[in-house]
Amino acid sequence: MTKFTAEEANTFLSTAFKGRGGQSQVMKMEPGLAVMRLEADETHLRPGGYISGPTQMSLADSVAYMAIMTLTGLEPMTVTSNLNINFLRPCIGAAVIAEGRIMKMGQALAVIEVDIRVEGADKPSSHAIVTYALPRKDA
Amino acid sequence: MTKFTAEEANTFLSTAFKGRGGQSQVMKMEPGLAVMRLEADETHLRPGGYISGPTQMSLADSVAYMAIMTLTGLEPMTVTSNLNINFLRPCIGAAVIAEGRIMKMGQALAVIEVDIRVEGADKPSSHAIVTYALPRKDA
Amino acid sequence: MTKFTAEEANTFLSTAFKGRGGQSQVMKMEPGLAVMRLEADETHLRPGGYISGPTQMSLADSVAYMAIMTLTGLEPMTVTSNLNINFLRPCIGAAVIAEGRIMKMGQALAVIEVDIRVEGADKPSSHAIVTYALPRKDA
Amino acid sequence: MTKFTAEEANTFLSTAFKGRGGQSQVMKMEPGLAVMRLEADETHLRPGGYISGPTQMSLADSVAYMAIMTLTGLEPMTVTSNLNINFLRPCIGAAVIAEGRIMKMGQALAVIEVDIRVEGADKPSSHAIVTYALPRKDA
Repeated sequence: MTKFTAEEANTFLSTAFKGRGGQSQVMKMEPGLAVMRLEADETHLRPGGYISGPTQMSLADSVAYMAIMTLTGLEPMTVTSNLNINFLRPCIGAAVIAEGRIMKMGQALAVIEVDIRVEGADKPSSHAIVTYALPRKDA
Repeated sequence: MTKFTAEEANTFLSTAFKGRGGQSQVMKMEPGLAVMRLEADETHLRPGGYISGPTQMSLADSVAYMAIMTLTGLEPMTVTSNLNINFLRPCIGAAVIAEGRIMKMGQALAVIEVDIRVEGADKPSSHAIVTYALPRKDA
Repeated sequence: MTKFTAEEANTFLSTAFKGRGGQSQVMKMEPGLAVMRLEADETHLRPGGYISGPTQMSLADSVAYMAIMTLTGLEPMTVTSNLNINFLRPCIGAAVIAEGRIMKMGQALAVIEVDIRVEGADKPSSHAIVTYALPRKDA
Repeated sequence: MTKFTAEEANTFLSTAFKGRGGQSQVMKMEPGLAVMRLEADETHLRPGGYISGPTQMSLADSVAYMAIMTLTGLEPMTVTSNLNINFLRPCIGAAVIAEGRIMKMGQALAVIEVDIRVEGADKPSSHAIVTYALPRKDA
């Protein structure tokens, strides 16, 4: 079972970020998997109507963090150490869905694979590999 | 000489993004080099007072784009294809400086190295390699 | 249908590399998918009996190339532009299987996801994202 | 002062790898910096006479490891966790020089920047960021 529910995650996000990013929501939390949804508003758009790269990167970072929380519970000292993102296709739509899956849960590092797609789309707009450094557990 | 000045860059940013990101400014544009400065406000901070990862990623993406503009002039069809960022040290301070340097300017791709540091700091908080796809020049 | 068969691929590899890397074989070529198998010998091992990182990187690069060939046919001017690999688990075994899947086939770039696992293993030893620059097709 | 000299490094390499990779040599070891040189033979070449991508990746991995050794001394449990390489220019020449510089030396991770260039060349052929996981030091 997940150690952090979607409801707990949403409460955490709205408290920690005080309404900023208030348009993104955690949809699903299962062990090793998190799904988030972002409703795009004009602050997320580039000229041309595309959902911007930074919006996608920020969402990739968040959903990777949430995927870890499904296994560890809330753990504020977990920090991003690397994020590598490939932009594959234009991202045009009213909402985007980000799915984060744990590839490795080690002692020092977690590696998460993230797919981001326009809601309803078949193919991803971007794909990221995100590495988080885990707080050291002392014996 | 740069094909896009710091002044032109700042006008472009404030027009294209209508005041959002209004705290970031282009400080220097030389051929192959761009420097930006971001004054952090609370929307850039994580719990704990750190300048957030997404803030740094967004700035890395922007300064890389500006570095290209120094060589090409304004070119809206230039889009990010890959961004790889390593977070090296906590980023705590009132402002951050991002420096983007062209490593390769090819026909299809530009590769830019970015250092981000707290203003006045010696060592970088993060380091990114950003790849942009360039619009095809037809003969 | 694949534009380059496993048999053609194996002939190409043994000709181009004259027996070096002679232990790696293309097992499957389907549109957008290539699978290779490497029988490890002592030149592939690190002290401790692990299949080395460079062996895995080299195999990731090859299988990504083969995945492209399934869509383009033999295309010698296709060159690697970026390879990003995460080592997830120790790689210990007599043979490794690499699977390359096209994530994006653009005009200028192809992006391929690669999983490498010990033959028979459930979880991957490493995971790579490989980007190839495609030769420009003139009209 | 370096905790592992170029002479010690060369002895280690020739012992651990029994003559394979015998053409690569450690040229310089200073705290946080390692330089290696590889004399190319036909096993390193691609059709066309280019020094192959896998040769460059393997060298990047080695020189990053050596850069760490300058700070830690010989530490066999240090393993690569991520390698990200951009190929910038064709690599044609009789020998290549790889330079590895520590960007971060943390408790769990070391991040190293690597430049690879043809001997005598001004501009790098490739550029890598390599992350190693460090063995846990118990109190």
